Amino acid sequence: MSDLLKQCEEAKQASHVIANLSLQQRNDILIALEKKLLENIDSIIEANKIDLIEAEKNGLSGSILDRLALNESRIKQMAEGVRQIAGLPDVLGFIEERSLENGLTIKTKKVPLGLIGIIYESRPNVTVDATALCLKSGNAVILRGGKEAINTNLQLLKIIKEAISSAGFNSSMVEMLADTSRETLFELMKQNKYIDILIPRGGSGLINSVRENATIPVIETGTGNCHIYVDENANLEMALSILINGKCQRPSVCNACETLLVHKNIAVDFLSQAYDKLLEQKVELRGCEQTADLIDCAPATEDDFFREYNALILAVKIVDSTADAIAHINKHGSKHSESIISDCNQNAQKFLQLVDAAVVYKNTSTRFTDGGEFGFGAEIGISTQKLHARGPMGLKELTTIKYVVESEGKIR
Amino acid sequence: MSDLLKQCEEAKQASHVIANLSLQQRNDILIALEKKLLENIDSIIEANKIDLIEAEKNGLSGSILDRLALNESRIKQMAEGVRQIAGLPDVLGFIEERSLENGLTIKTKKVPLGLIGIIYESRPNVTVDATALCLKSGNAVILRGGKEAINTNLQLLKIIKEAISSAGFNSSMVEMLADTSRETLFELMKQNKYIDILIPRGGSGLINSVRENATIPVIETGTGNCHIYVDENANLEMALSILINGKCQRPSVCNACETLLVHKNIAVDFLSQAYDKLLEQKVELRGCEQTADLIDCAPATEDDFFREYNALILAVKIVDSTADAIAHINKHGSKHSESIISDCNQNAQKFLQLVDAAVVYKNTSTRFTDGGEFGFGAEIGISTQKLHARGPMGLKELTTIKYVVESEGKIR
Repeated sequence: MSDLLKQCEEAKQASHVIANLSLQQRNDILIALEKKLLENIDSIIEANKIDLIEAEKNGLSGSILDRLALNESRIKQMAEGVRQIAGLPDVLGFIEERSLENGLTIKTKKVPLGLIGIIYESRPNVTVDATALCLKSGNAVILRGGKEAINTNLQLLKIIKEAISSAGFNSSMVEMLADTSRETLFELMKQNKYIDILIPRGGSGLINSVRENATIPVIETGTGNCHIYVDENANLEMALSILINGKCQRPSVCNACETLLVHKNIAVDFLSQAYDKLLEQKVELRGCEQTADLIDCAPATEDDFFREYNALILAVKIVDSTADAIAHINKHGSKHSESIISDCNQNAQKFLQLVDAAVVYKNTSTRFTDGGEFGFGAEIGISTQKLHARGPMGLKELTTIKYVVESEGKIR
Repeated sequence: MSDLLKQCEEAKQASHVIANLSLQQRNDILIALEKKLLENIDSIIEANKIDLIEAEKNGLSGSILDRLALNESRIKQMAEGVRQIAGLPDVLGFIEERSLENGLTIKTKKVPLGLIGIIYESRPNVTVDATALCLKSGNAVILRGGKEAINTNLQLLKIIKEAISSAGFNSSMVEMLADTSRETLFELMKQNKYIDILIPRGGSGLINSVRENATIPVIETGTGNCHIYVDENANLEMALSILINGKCQRPSVCNACETLLVHKNIAVDFLSQAYDKLLEQKVELRGCEQTADLIDCAPATEDDFFREYNALILAVKIVDSTADAIAHINKHGSKHSESIISDCNQNAQKFLQLVDAAVVYKNTSTRFTDGGEFGFGAEIGISTQKLHARGPMGLKELTTIKYVVESEGKIR
């Protein structure tokens, strides 16, 4: 039996343990983890240094190095995150009881999914965040982090396992692939016998690969090609404020704005105002032909309108109507977050009704699509698919249901 | 562009139409469909005859011929089913409104999944049932039925399209693959650009093939390796009644019992009683070694304990304890429906808590796992996976959510 299969089997066994722990017992593990993280700051930073040196040697980009790097403050933040998750209410247990026409009483119970596979890239804090969310919701987890963070991740795993053991439970409820090869990743995606769901967190390359190859049900997360549509009836000052917030506040995240759609009747006015502000923020512009007639910008290809830049680049398109804006978004968007800026309620309601996305906004920045902002207390990712979960996913989205039926001998 | 791609594109377009129809408009389509079915009984029976002659020529089994055959009474039943679905309450619309800490108000809206792909085998009534459920819940549907039912299915499609057109809407909201080749089926499974979810209905061969090859999120349905466990504290008379009901009432369905587990302390008593009753019902027995010591039966292999017979065959195993029964079920079961027969509440609660299945029963037949019995009014299938839906799936399971957020210019 390969290492992977052994880990899957042990984690599956342990999933039956964690699924049946009390809230207090699950919280005990999290509190132990918070403590161990704070006690082991030095060893984590040491392991992280090995990864950082290796990454620099391999010429990885500054943004990857930034995502990879841990310091005392970031580790304290991770520990604080675990403490917050411990403080959230339980999502498991009976939620409904119905009497059926056939005389049976049926109870609906929220139960953990079982064993969750998380596939992620360079940010080692995901190791701790995802573990805390899975354990809190009664799930076991098997982690496959990025190659570049492997030393940090294995050190974090050691601390997690110590925390679970110190609370008195089977530490196999959290496992990690030490082998970060592509082959082993592909093997992982086929373990539908053991793993109940797979959550890939990362760029569209990773998500596509998982979608193509997994035999385990997948929740796709995080690809955000979000639009802001400025209608002819928009308050242009408000539109500008929302555009700058959506594009510039944190361009690397999935809820940042990637494409600006502008109604033709206000295009001259709005684009001349927006141009100065965007230039101030060093945003590179790629416009449709009509846009290029009005402001200085590179030409946008059809491909640009499908892209998630995750950078200070904005595609711009002038449209003839709200209907055109909706059609453009439904064709090019990633069904994440879409906003209309308009003082015409009829146009806005049409947009909110007809745009097919997890979150639709009126006169509001797309940046609010986030588990914390949505009041979920924590977030395992943002689902851009329609099955099981849509939009920000909190603890509730890591559960399924079980029907419990009791009678005194009923037959059909 | 291939026929398939063209159909997918047209159905996707039409999905935006059906998604935004009122309840009255969706019901109008269903009422028109009921009427057209009743008006076209002769033409359906005629098309069905072509399929039946072909099936007999190809030597298909009696049970397939039975599933394939339509007569006036079965067509009237289909029409009646459509009328019942028209009468069910709407599952779409706003379900929650929350005020967030950041000052935003967020509304949660139930919306259709979009375009649903249904892959099924020989029963042509699925064509009508699935269509009615999808349209009622605001979804477009692309159907791929079995080769042996193609003439019947195409005739039903013609009637469905006429009904949609007569109600004044785009009939592309229901499409069907006229080409039932394996190649086209595989092409269908890859259309994640158009199809939002795929529901395979059929045997484990079909389900496995879809799981292995689809790039669209799948809901697995219908594989039922269900167990009845007779505990040492069982009322044996009740246990016998439930066993006969679970195994014999309708052995071809997924909620029928396939394996009997018996506690060793009551095995002699119970099996001798059960033996006579099962023999009366012509049930073939395959037992573990200990069972074979007590009653006349063929030996059960490990493979038998994994099988869904869908026939009058029962695997029998003697276990040492409730814990053993739970372990056997969690290893061999298909997570469908599992029942304990016991007068010891402690053992029963342990079983209900620890068995990992969509529906767990105490002193009740597994045959109750059904959308109709569960009060859902109708059923598109029984999910044996944990993502999105578990157990009987009604209209609600054909929806997802959308968050709608409005403000007057909020930025983060």
